[in-house]
Amino acid sequence: MGVVRMRMTVAYDGSEFHGFARNEGVPTVAGSLGDALASVLGHPVEIVCAGRTDRGVHARAQVISFDADMERADPVRLVRAINRMCAPRISVSRASIESPDFDARRSCTGRVYRYRVLNSPVPNPLAAGLCWHVERPLDLRAMRTAADRLLGVHDFSSFCRRNPSKEHQSMVRTVRRAVWWLEGDVAVFEIEASAFCHQMVRSLVALLVSVGLGRHKPSDVGAIIAARDRSATPSPAPPHGLVLWAALYDAAATADHHR
Amino acid sequence: MGVVRMRMTVAYDGSEFHGFARNEGVPTVAGSLGDALASVLGHPVEIVCAGRTDRGVHARAQVISFDADMERADPVRLVRAINRMCAPRISVSRASIESPDFDARRSCTGRVYRYRVLNSPVPNPLAAGLCWHVERPLDLRAMRTAADRLLGVHDFSSFCRRNPSKEHQSMVRTVRRAVWWLEGDVAVFEIEASAFCHQMVRSLVALLVSVGLGRHKPSDVGAIIAARDRSATPSPAPPHGLVLWAALYDAAATADHHR
Repeated sequence: MGVVRMRMTVAYDGSEFHGFARNEGVPTVAGSLGDALASVLGHPVEIVCAGRTDRGVHARAQVISFDADMERADPVRLVRAINRMCAPRISVSRASIESPDFDARRSCTGRVYRYRVLNSPVPNPLAAGLCWHVERPLDLRAMRTAADRLLGVHDFSSFCRRNPSKEHQSMVRTVRRAVWWLEGDVAVFEIEASAFCHQMVRSLVALLVSVGLGRHKPSDVGAIIAARDRSATPSPAPPHGLVLWAALYDAAATADHHR
Repeated sequence: MGVVRMRMTVAYDGSEFHGFARNEGVPTVAGSLGDALASVLGHPVEIVCAGRTDRGVHARAQVISFDADMERADPVRLVRAINRMCAPRISVSRASIESPDFDARRSCTGRVYRYRVLNSPVPNPLAAGLCWHVERPLDLRAMRTAADRLLGVHDFSSFCRRNPSKEHQSMVRTVRRAVWWLEGDVAVFEIEASAFCHQMVRSLVALLVSVGLGRHKPSDVGAIIAARDRSATPSPAPPHGLVLWAALYDAAATADHHR
């Protein structure tokens, strides 16, 4: 069978998935998508993604790549079929055929995440699925000052859960953007980096919210990074506030051969 | 026991409730709230609400009233206790003691509802719980023209589900505002009226969306109202797009004795 490399942009509500990565016996995004793709394409599918989101984390524009039987790799038909099979939890906004060296993970040059914090004295049931609720007032100015300290190249070991089987893995990452803004009573954090290590965004948010509550000072951030020690950092913020917002690719890698 | 009339503003995610009204054996908003209030106040509670929302319909600011033992009717304590017991599906933003003639339903001078339509070729899992997804492009201008025809005093029998036991009930209502706007790819409809009859907002939305899709013309609205016949109207739009946004009261009725 001749194969082509396909790319898809997918969104999902992470609340009922045990994360992106396939894990037999529990519902996962890759499991649901892989089963749907296999049934449309008529062969098993190995999915690579831009960012392996954890259990409960959502995505607005995750990018995946996989090989497909060229006879059946019709992007328009695939989008329609997968949306029919996977709605409402997962949707596909776009599919394309790429050059054979396109790889959703290795070709990706940057990831953008957003984290939402509902900052109000009372909960909001209509925002509960997508926001971490923090009751006490946050000092957004201090949180912005603290976020600025994250910019640039750092060893983020203090914020990352290490895989015991990869003890010497580098935790050096480049943060290009880290900003907070308000949408009504929701404080939104957006961070862009070359890549993220495991639980990094949620650990950073936990620290920045701690700064916003006055438990840490913006000037503590440098020392916490320098410590390269997870025990110095508050526990990660809850997953349901986090959304993989976008995956970035160089123009060359994103040139679609067929749309 | 001396009693005081209490008022509360509550929000809820309607997706897992079988509507507002208590209905033994199934989860309802009044059932959950009533049980929580009874356990805090130490006596059963009869809840009156501004708008009896249907199964699956949400509320941002529903208003309820009930009588409470004056010894235990501490608004601040009640808000905290109910939020602790009912989160994340139901929350209370405010409670107050009112004059004994305050009645959440009869004192209410207007209700505001919002309805959200996601208008995009693909679904959006992160908006699926709060939006009706309509794939084909909507003509918002036609929908606005049609909405204008709803303004004023009309017999809305064509849009209302009649209670068979109240056959001669009047369906005359006064619509004060009916507007559409866009938030990204979500078309938001806001309607304010003196009161609404059963399924009225969802039936109106169904007709306006039908206008937006070119199946009806804005000029059809007058004839459909005049027909006073439900069979002329498309089936109601799905409940999960609808939010009871606000309940309005005259200043005199809203003067809180204690906050």
